[in-house]
Amino acid sequence: MTAKVRIGVLGAGNMGSFHANTVAHRTPETVLAALADLSERAVRSLAERTEPERCSTDPEEVIEDPSIQAVVIATPGHTHADLIERAAKAGKHIFCEKPIALELPAIDEALAAVRDAGVKLQVGLQRRFDPGFVRAKEMVERGEVGDLYIVHSRTRDPEAPPLEYLRGCGGLFRDTSVHDLDVVRWLSGCEAVEVYATGEVLTDPRIAEVGDVDTAAIVLRMENGAIATVDNSRRSVYGYDVRAEVFGSKGSVEVVADRSTFVTHRSKAGVCHDHPYWYLDRFAVAYEAEIRAFARCVLEDTRPQVTGEDGRAARVLGIAAQRSRAERRP
Amino acid sequence: MTAKVRIGVLGAGNMGSFHANTVAHRTPETVLAALADLSERAVRSLAERTEPERCSTDPEEVIEDPSIQAVVIATPGHTHADLIERAAKAGKHIFCEKPIALELPAIDEALAAVRDAGVKLQVGLQRRFDPGFVRAKEMVERGEVGDLYIVHSRTRDPEAPPLEYLRGCGGLFRDTSVHDLDVVRWLSGCEAVEVYATGEVLTDPRIAEVGDVDTAAIVLRMENGAIATVDNSRRSVYGYDVRAEVFGSKGSVEVVADRSTFVTHRSKAGVCHDHPYWYLDRFAVAYEAEIRAFARCVLEDTRPQVTGEDGRAARVLGIAAQRSRAERRP
Amino acid sequence: MTAKVRIGVLGAGNMGSFHANTVAHRTPETVLAALADLSERAVRSLAERTEPERCSTDPEEVIEDPSIQAVVIATPGHTHADLIERAAKAGKHIFCEKPIALELPAIDEALAAVRDAGVKLQVGLQRRFDPGFVRAKEMVERGEVGDLYIVHSRTRDPEAPPLEYLRGCGGLFRDTSVHDLDVVRWLSGCEAVEVYATGEVLTDPRIAEVGDVDTAAIVLRMENGAIATVDNSRRSVYGYDVRAEVFGSKGSVEVVADRSTFVTHRSKAGVCHDHPYWYLDRFAVAYEAEIRAFARCVLEDTRPQVTGEDGRAARVLGIAAQRSRAERRP
Amino acid sequence: MTAKVRIGVLGAGNMGSFHANTVAHRTPETVLAALADLSERAVRSLAERTEPERCSTDPEEVIEDPSIQAVVIATPGHTHADLIERAAKAGKHIFCEKPIALELPAIDEALAAVRDAGVKLQVGLQRRFDPGFVRAKEMVERGEVGDLYIVHSRTRDPEAPPLEYLRGCGGLFRDTSVHDLDVVRWLSGCEAVEVYATGEVLTDPRIAEVGDVDTAAIVLRMENGAIATVDNSRRSVYGYDVRAEVFGSKGSVEVVADRSTFVTHRSKAGVCHDHPYWYLDRFAVAYEAEIRAFARCVLEDTRPQVTGEDGRAARVLGIAAQRSRAERRP
Repeated sequence: MTAKVRIGVLGAGNMGSFHANTVAHRTPETVLAALADLSERAVRSLAERTEPERCSTDPEEVIEDPSIQAVVIATPGHTHADLIERAAKAGKHIFCEKPIALELPAIDEALAAVRDAGVKLQVGLQRRFDPGFVRAKEMVERGEVGDLYIVHSRTRDPEAPPLEYLRGCGGLFRDTSVHDLDVVRWLSGCEAVEVYATGEVLTDPRIAEVGDVDTAAIVLRMENGAIATVDNSRRSVYGYDVRAEVFGSKGSVEVVADRSTFVTHRSKAGVCHDHPYWYLDRFAVAYEAEIRAFARCVLEDTRPQVTGEDGRAARVLGIAAQRSRAERRP
Repeated sequence: MTAKVRIGVLGAGNMGSFHANTVAHRTPETVLAALADLSERAVRSLAERTEPERCSTDPEEVIEDPSIQAVVIATPGHTHADLIERAAKAGKHIFCEKPIALELPAIDEALAAVRDAGVKLQVGLQRRFDPGFVRAKEMVERGEVGDLYIVHSRTRDPEAPPLEYLRGCGGLFRDTSVHDLDVVRWLSGCEAVEVYATGEVLTDPRIAEVGDVDTAAIVLRMENGAIATVDNSRRSVYGYDVRAEVFGSKGSVEVVADRSTFVTHRSKAGVCHDHPYWYLDRFAVAYEAEIRAFARCVLEDTRPQVTGEDGRAARVLGIAAQRSRAERRP
Repeated sequence: MTAKVRIGVLGAGNMGSFHANTVAHRTPETVLAALADLSERAVRSLAERTEPERCSTDPEEVIEDPSIQAVVIATPGHTHADLIERAAKAGKHIFCEKPIALELPAIDEALAAVRDAGVKLQVGLQRRFDPGFVRAKEMVERGEVGDLYIVHSRTRDPEAPPLEYLRGCGGLFRDTSVHDLDVVRWLSGCEAVEVYATGEVLTDPRIAEVGDVDTAAIVLRMENGAIATVDNSRRSVYGYDVRAEVFGSKGSVEVVADRSTFVTHRSKAGVCHDHPYWYLDRFAVAYEAEIRAFARCVLEDTRPQVTGEDGRAARVLGIAAQRSRAERRP
Repeated sequence: MTAKVRIGVLGAGNMGSFHANTVAHRTPETVLAALADLSERAVRSLAERTEPERCSTDPEEVIEDPSIQAVVIATPGHTHADLIERAAKAGKHIFCEKPIALELPAIDEALAAVRDAGVKLQVGLQRRFDPGFVRAKEMVERGEVGDLYIVHSRTRDPEAPPLEYLRGCGGLFRDTSVHDLDVVRWLSGCEAVEVYATGEVLTDPRIAEVGDVDTAAIVLRMENGAIATVDNSRRSVYGYDVRAEVFGSKGSVEVVADRSTFVTHRSKAGVCHDHPYWYLDRFAVAYEAEIRAFARCVLEDTRPQVTGEDGRAARVLGIAAQRSRAERRP
């Protein structure tokens, strides 16, 4: 009989729903032991599809449940740090969607709580589990790119989230670029020593009103001399455009998933194919794989592939980018 | 609580293992109630990973189990017809890997048993559940191709199966081309009125010894006048190459999945990407989707998307192709 | 000073105009010594752009001109055989657009005249000069495909030529398929031993009235056992679709030029690029290269890369395809 | 009779040879009236292939020749400004390879001389004549991209030029990036208001010795708010990688010519195609088109499509990038 991790999922929004389904139906190593969301309606609706053993509108009940070994935190971002600390204190292993917290002190407190409790914390930077990104990483590690010259990462979202979300998310550099900054660190295998960023509001003036930007570019100098560039936008009408490239002395490895199905349509309008529209189209396999990897690292007592420190490091770069833009200097 | 279909899987080979895993871990609508294979070792090994409620080395035990509503038949091809008949008599719904049987009379008997018992039979022509093929079919039905001119389907396997399998599989035209012939029927939405086929042994002389060919082309005239072509090979060193095209008065829709990950490698050797190697790389999503569709049609009492009649019709074309080759005439 | 071939161009239609421009302005080894077309207006208009030394409405004048070493025949197809014979008797080297003639006896007479006169004859099968096809041929010859299994060639024209042209062109199998049949022979390096063809009228009933088909498939068994398939259509709304593939024991080499410029457009409609519309878009480089090769083989007294025998052999296969279709047997 | 421009080509190096061939053999509107290079051997060798009316080892002789209307300057970069001034004074129209000069004062003097003489000056920024770039520009102008968000341009050379060339070329930002900076200006249709650049020596330490970098990224804020990024490298083992993208409110237009022939090779190593290796592979059509456009603007007395002011503006941005890198600030 396969050992199983009994997991409680906190949050029944987009990602919480996806993770609950993965825990319940798509991963043999997991059991959906509990589900919690402040909204009773959201819990009930999700519970119908995922059949958790228990439901609650109070995450604390899940955290305190002694039969549960691990929690998946997919609540709004500003609640993460507190939930991490409480779950850590309750001895639960933790899978947490980014961000750990908006500001460094809160991140550091959460990470300290995790360390003190000796539990595992895996952060939801799912690109590290996408088959394309995984293969690119392997190729870089096997030396197929040679010495690194240029690393590039791009994220263009199809549309901006609601203004309310924008108000609380910490800005484009912490909310979106954080994925790119993590990819740059991970694929290059080294840290940034200098960050320059520029950003503009071009898609919707209300984004300026909440103090954010919707279009940005970041340039990083890495400790091994390589140059990294990041390109972000909140509005890409053709869909969710995520890519990364590592270019070096032996060539280039690039990840670009710019089609959703393998269908090519030739007509008077030209030769066309579809494009993934949202992150769930693009990263469904990766979202499943990260939960499965989390379960295995709990079962096998190994180190998570994306640690709290990784989450923190990407966040530090996001904050540096934000400051660079504000102060107009690297 | 989601209603669930209690399924018994017969056969613990490649496809049986895949389906057992799908039934057990990847589809909320199904429960893996039982697992049977003549080899105790195979059953035990698969059971460890899929945790069926009961195991057996006798398929009859599964078929007779009154708690089970449906069976998945993934045993060697020559046993299918008999198992279908017995399962039908026991009132089980049936998902059966192709072939139903090698010869038409046996197919007809099995289909009659299914009809008499009033159970559902879905045949494992999984391309109909691949997201690319599904989208192509939708586009054809929406009229985006216009009047049909040419339909093409290709299957090139990476390597020939063992000689023992080849001896029992009924030949390339029934074993491999059957998928293409089904695709031609399904995508075009019409029947063939004339079949011409040619085939050769080019990859391994032992294939001639078992009376088969390893390379073939088939041309069909369809009842609406369209011309269909099929191209088959038992040995494609670059991997499993499956494609289909529907070309008509408004353009062309083509399904070609010629990469396994979205990674492009640029080096002195050129610009390269990987290729799916085997059918499980290429059609994992489709194999899951067909089991899920089968479960839903049991739960909702609807007609299967691929019926026994579809399996029979593709088989008839395969037999016609074989005869055309033998007699050197359409 | 580079030696130059003094060339007379016969015919001022599409291909005659293209060749006259090549001879006059794009090839250092050639001089446009004369231009002739029955239509004075066509000659005059083309002469303005290409500045030949002399113009005429009588091809005979060009053929008899002792200062001219070679002629390019781009007149309507039914005049080719006679012009070849007259040019050969006048001692001119000959570049002739396909066809040499519609029927074999006329082809044989023309080839005999060429042989008797000891002049060179190059036939306008320009795909052999396209950089992609040339590279594919080199790869096949270097053994990168290994033993041949399947050869495929496709030509889909964007729209059917005028009915008047269709009446005189000898039918789809001789007019269009001839290019594919030549590609099959050339890329495979071997001859066909059996031909099966089917064809239909699907795009325009008037094509049936002139006794032709507009959609066709051909299957050939080659002398080395390989199977070749050809797919033709007179109406491809998305543009001129020419491709070829050679598949064998070591892999596959495929030529597909399905874009006209290297621009990719991503929008709500998907990811799109353009498609070459007509043969002049697709093969401009090849049409120049074949004239240049012809000039060099005159200057260097070498054998043309596409001989009259090649033209004849492709035509024989086209006639066999036509007969196969009529008699419904290979 | 077509009017023709009598052109003298100055410089018999790579680009001089290419242009002389274009003027002599590939463009009906031009006559190669003269050829000059300091090296008698280079002149003689090129003259054999291009047959100019006269040859010289003194450019002055060509500039003073009253029968000549225009010159193509393809000599080493440091000689350009002086030759432009002398040619302008002699009343010749001028096509000049970039750079006009390394420093702004010299550029301004040369442009003043051109203005005073009332002659035409076209600068060799050939990307503006590449069919892909031209189409991208048209699409941007037709509004198919909508409001601009991000513009990207990349140039990666396959290998660094000789150290001697590097010493005199003004550095990567002026020598290579100048093409990208021109593309950014041209495609976006607006000017930059802020430039940030970073650069490193990663491929060869001798490049640091001559005070240059070999890897660089540039970020520009454009006057309409759009963000532009440039990525440059002196060493791309897979070949000459030039691309550009314009991304905006309606989608994205991207130019990427990452194959040299339309051949796809599938083998055990994967699915591969070739890559253009050098600028002459990639831009042959554009180099011909720019000379033809120059000839037409002389014949029709129109404004060149790439003016001296365009050359100057790109150079100003290159200098700004160089200063940004030196001073580590935008």
